[in-house]
Amino acid sequence: MVTGPGTALASAGVDTALDALTAALPDSALVTDPDVLAALAADDAEWAPAGKPLAALRANSTAEVQAAVRVCADLRIPVVTRGAGTGLSGGANATDGCLVVDLSKMNRILEIDAENLLAVVQPGVVNNDLKAAVAEHGLWYPPDPASAPWSTIGGNVATNAGGLCCLKYGVTRDYVLGLEAVMGGPAGPYGTAVRFGRRTAKGVSGYDMTGLFTGSEGTFGVLTEITLRLRRAPTGTPHTVVGAFDDLVSAGEAVALCTRRGLQPAALELLDRACMTAVEEWKHLGIEADAAALLLARVDSPGQAGEEEAAAVAATFTESGALWAERSTDPTEAEALFEVRRLAYPALERLGPVLTEDICVPRSAVPEMLARTEATGRRHGVRIATIAHAGDGNLHPLLITPPGDEAAREAAQTAFEELLSEAVALGGTVTGEHGVGLLKRDGMTRELGPEVCAVQHAVKDALDPLGLFNPGKVVGAAH
Amino acid sequence: MVTGPGTALASAGVDTALDALTAALPDSALVTDPDVLAALAADDAEWAPAGKPLAALRANSTAEVQAAVRVCADLRIPVVTRGAGTGLSGGANATDGCLVVDLSKMNRILEIDAENLLAVVQPGVVNNDLKAAVAEHGLWYPPDPASAPWSTIGGNVATNAGGLCCLKYGVTRDYVLGLEAVMGGPAGPYGTAVRFGRRTAKGVSGYDMTGLFTGSEGTFGVLTEITLRLRRAPTGTPHTVVGAFDDLVSAGEAVALCTRRGLQPAALELLDRACMTAVEEWKHLGIEADAAALLLARVDSPGQAGEEEAAAVAATFTESGALWAERSTDPTEAEALFEVRRLAYPALERLGPVLTEDICVPRSAVPEMLARTEATGRRHGVRIATIAHAGDGNLHPLLITPPGDEAAREAAQTAFEELLSEAVALGGTVTGEHGVGLLKRDGMTRELGPEVCAVQHAVKDALDPLGLFNPGKVVGAAH
Repeated sequence: MVTGPGTALASAGVDTALDALTAALPDSALVTDPDVLAALAADDAEWAPAGKPLAALRANSTAEVQAAVRVCADLRIPVVTRGAGTGLSGGANATDGCLVVDLSKMNRILEIDAENLLAVVQPGVVNNDLKAAVAEHGLWYPPDPASAPWSTIGGNVATNAGGLCCLKYGVTRDYVLGLEAVMGGPAGPYGTAVRFGRRTAKGVSGYDMTGLFTGSEGTFGVLTEITLRLRRAPTGTPHTVVGAFDDLVSAGEAVALCTRRGLQPAALELLDRACMTAVEEWKHLGIEADAAALLLARVDSPGQAGEEEAAAVAATFTESGALWAERSTDPTEAEALFEVRRLAYPALERLGPVLTEDICVPRSAVPEMLARTEATGRRHGVRIATIAHAGDGNLHPLLITPPGDEAAREAAQTAFEELLSEAVALGGTVTGEHGVGLLKRDGMTRELGPEVCAVQHAVKDALDPLGLFNPGKVVGAAH
Repeated sequence: MVTGPGTALASAGVDTALDALTAALPDSALVTDPDVLAALAADDAEWAPAGKPLAALRANSTAEVQAAVRVCADLRIPVVTRGAGTGLSGGANATDGCLVVDLSKMNRILEIDAENLLAVVQPGVVNNDLKAAVAEHGLWYPPDPASAPWSTIGGNVATNAGGLCCLKYGVTRDYVLGLEAVMGGPAGPYGTAVRFGRRTAKGVSGYDMTGLFTGSEGTFGVLTEITLRLRRAPTGTPHTVVGAFDDLVSAGEAVALCTRRGLQPAALELLDRACMTAVEEWKHLGIEADAAALLLARVDSPGQAGEEEAAAVAATFTESGALWAERSTDPTEAEALFEVRRLAYPALERLGPVLTEDICVPRSAVPEMLARTEATGRRHGVRIATIAHAGDGNLHPLLITPPGDEAAREAAQTAFEELLSEAVALGGTVTGEHGVGLLKRDGMTRELGPEVCAVQHAVKDALDPLGLFNPGKVVGAAH
């Protein structure tokens, strides 16, 4: 049994803790202004509980993170790491009395090695900034969460972020070769910086600690450097295929049929009428939301193969009952369509608090999951808009509530949990790419069962015996 | 502190242990014949120490594995799991007094789900048998270690096996979605079967335990079921490009240049004159070993894109100083060339004991690593033949010694360790795809350093507190 964080702090007192942090860190790096702290205390997850931090560190270097973690370990101050705060599960939410370690200023690209197709970055580098920098070398960093213009690589690694093109190109974990973590426990005194992983294309030297840290939501330590695999930038113009459907389930059937036929577009996105209407009402792009759902595919196979694949996707849409299906290689038109997809989430957020699902089901179950989503919304009187990385089976039903309506909030929260259970019942998972954070801890427990959860706890306890790092996230409270 | 395996056994006695195993297991499953045990006590790694097992279980079911692990935990009998025994690092070698759990009879393919591109298999399924079975559904399981005709999926997962096509299609870990493991510790009493992972394309529900078990060489538990991601079988005829070089280093430079240019063949293999000669002397295929090294590329991009890529690879070979470079789409000719590649290892083994390196370096360092390999061989008077998944930077220098020559053996073992250190010095790793086992424990320790090794030990201790599973492998002896 270990002493939980906060125990020593309670006796040492807040002033002592702040004095110790102030002594260990440069003035400019430590934030205690209550308004700023409040802004740093939560990510974008609706209604996820957030505590009141003791202070925040706007870290400039690994050394500062190490110094802070040393003090925090001595005084049992919980450490909650954050990047841009675009998370949707509460994984970066503060706990009472914690130190928030904000890594957004550690945003340097340390190395781009075009010869070996890799980059070494600080965790605060914004996803799209990395994409732009490596593009100058003819290279590409594929993972593209919709938050790519704002979210950081550190946050992407912490949640093992997905995105649109992971259908063909994989998720963040597939691109993380190595990392540096400030941790404690078996590695040495808390505050020790440890380098895991490698710079080679392959490697099996010991356990895959890099993969384990990826997606661990800051519960093992603070990531201070990340080595990423890159690809050559794709050449040629991708094809865009759009299909309009007069019901959501038919669109789901088109997705399932694409998978069954082995078609592999780089992206296969679904958005429903509620999403299109919300974007149109906001941006006036001239979208006619005459269909119940759109499927949006990007095919990037080069040359004739791309032509054929795009034609096959369009034919599959038509055979699945699309009202219409069209192909385009006009980049402006294609970009406009994907822009609608990217704008859907902020457009819906304008309407009221949004609870964001991130369920993922086997692809053959996409139609059934869409049907159950509609039924769940009807049953609880909850307005649900759906965007989806449909080709992955990763669906984002968005539960929208009128601002300030407590009954609607409760109904939405009930529907949220039910959808998690429906996904698990269909052989799926409660989170495809956003992470467990706070919002999906219960769902995860139902999905994984007690043995797997106990194994996870054991790993957490082994790597962070003080329970210092992001307590309560992923594996839940100390047991 | 936990009691190490063997302690209880020493007091309980061998007869008691055998009685307990006999009582718990069907007669037919338990092997005690000394000759059979000797054959099951080691894998294919040359000169890796192997102990004398107490007995072996030829398991037929998860329930039998569970029953055996329960007895072993009670009596502290170490459990060493094996599949086909084709490993090259001693990872499946017995320890004295252990129970060998041979999973080769658990060889059923439980499910092929063509709709969701996955298969569920028992661990004893042979890699090529799985390939053949899924091919009937138009599907493909890409990982293709050279041992694919004999090695099992369980062993492939235990070592995170690579192969020829992982240059483009990834390694075993990229295809493992879920698994069942018989383990103990946090999961419950030893002998508890736990199911990790998922059946969906994406998922971040909790820590990546599936990835952690993959490549853990049986040190956390016994894998009894594996869920694998599949791909659609590629269509069209691949192109083969062959380049002949009058020295090894120029061939390495061609590989580095291919990477720099972003060419991504499905395979890019190197074999040197010693390999070609050994195959020719054995099989009389009519190979003229007139070059010091051959590069062998397979390009499988469809249509015109494949044409262009094959031409670009050939041009890169020529620009790097190839004596000649030729393209072929004749499948018979191509198959013959890759057959020479596959036969190289057994052909060399005929000449005497072979110590197999598995170093992997950043691809730009391939020429330098090849040069250092030649220098190391000269310095120690060791005959070294090289085959390589060169496109990955994964080199297999094969250190050949005359049978029974003790001095040559010592020289080879010294050269072996030096090559590990050279790879690490070039930013590489001691093992790209074969695993740590016994032969690379020291090298791994040098590569990873004490902090990472301590973290690994902590994970091992957390998941297997009795140290029951494959003691001494990967992380080394209990500390």
